[in-house]
Amino acid sequence: MDFKTWQHVFKLDPAKEITDGHLERICKSGTDAILIGGSDNVTLDNVLHLTERVQHYQLPIVLEISTIDSVAPGFDYYFIPTVLNSDNLLWVKGLHHKAIREYGEILDWDELVPEGYCILNADCKAAKLTDAQTDLTTEDVLAYARLAEYFFRLPIFYMEYSGMFGDMELVEKVKRVLVETRLFYGGGIHSVDTARKALAFADTIVVGNIIYENIDKAIETVEAVAETAG
Amino acid sequence: MDFKTWQHVFKLDPAKEITDGHLERICKSGTDAILIGGSDNVTLDNVLHLTERVQHYQLPIVLEISTIDSVAPGFDYYFIPTVLNSDNLLWVKGLHHKAIREYGEILDWDELVPEGYCILNADCKAAKLTDAQTDLTTEDVLAYARLAEYFFRLPIFYMEYSGMFGDMELVEKVKRVLVETRLFYGGGIHSVDTARKALAFADTIVVGNIIYENIDKAIETVEAVAETAG
Repeated sequence: MDFKTWQHVFKLDPAKEITDGHLERICKSGTDAILIGGSDNVTLDNVLHLTERVQHYQLPIVLEISTIDSVAPGFDYYFIPTVLNSDNLLWVKGLHHKAIREYGEILDWDELVPEGYCILNADCKAAKLTDAQTDLTTEDVLAYARLAEYFFRLPIFYMEYSGMFGDMELVEKVKRVLVETRLFYGGGIHSVDTARKALAFADTIVVGNIIYENIDKAIETVEAVAETAG
Repeated sequence: MDFKTWQHVFKLDPAKEITDGHLERICKSGTDAILIGGSDNVTLDNVLHLTERVQHYQLPIVLEISTIDSVAPGFDYYFIPTVLNSDNLLWVKGLHHKAIREYGEILDWDELVPEGYCILNADCKAAKLTDAQTDLTTEDVLAYARLAEYFFRLPIFYMEYSGMFGDMELVEKVKRVLVETRLFYGGGIHSVDTARKALAFADTIVVGNIIYENIDKAIETVEAVAETAG
């Protein structure tokens, strides 16, 4: 159940509707884990509701925390982003400090996994929300990756292209500078082909939006893992 | 030579004058290491000059990096502060990102030690320079300590009271929440008595200004270590 072995993760948005049939296909697809998280309208209610439905299936469930208000117990992991290319201190360490101040006494640190986000699509909601500086050179991105691995010792470096398929040459370059830190890739994976391309370099791919647009294509992305493993 | 075993460190400011006689007393005092760093007028020239003089003695030398321009090779460690209670992104991760972008290819990461600073004296130069938010409750400071240890996995949490002797009750509380992360304390240690008080809770005390004000008192602070060890 160690997240360091995961290659494929489905990201479910608690603010979006999904039928029981689609959810079953997602959870029985062979994916390594379900990550629950979103940028908009995430509430304790919709997080709990979705989580309960996912818990019927035997696979790891992660809550990616975007607001403190929607944190609930019972997850295998809590992924906590720090947005390394944010211009807003809140998203780098401010919200984290506030959350720790409030819950520091009762937190189980073994379940908390810091993620170093680098948001690379200027047009996505996460970029706007976090005031991310997305106009980055290759050197800028590599430096964020090294900052994540060597300075802040973050277990995950997450290249987030949410809504578009990213620059695979850049993903490859980032992978080459990382050693212990796992490289997560998200954005624009909407087919087995794009999944395959991203998995060629990323350790873990995160498949999200396509779940709500084309469930068949979403399920197909899991095939890329079997191919890579073979 | 592992910094995790150090209890007493003298901090020498490259912008301040020190006689050969005083430097010899400092270096032969029994201190565990010499830390070279300052907030003002630190240049490559004065860093190199002071370092060369310290190198005559057989003890570990650390460069605490405050500006990229004064970085020189040949140190046992490079301590790199991230100011956790700074309101200025540059001091949290901006300068670090810039330095890694420039020197990432050639850095020897094993020598780099990130320090999570919490600056607690509003009137000190470091607080003004880094725009530190020093009006903190006990809970705020404990949350920064936990942020350092559990979120950013920083090997050092540094309570900096530069220029005044700090709140030892707070130092004690911080020590209680840290496990792997070492607690460094700096500020107002100007006698064996203040050294003893700080060493009761901090893992490592940093003695600076008194070197330039009263060399006998400075040397005396080392005695507190022997007492603690005994």
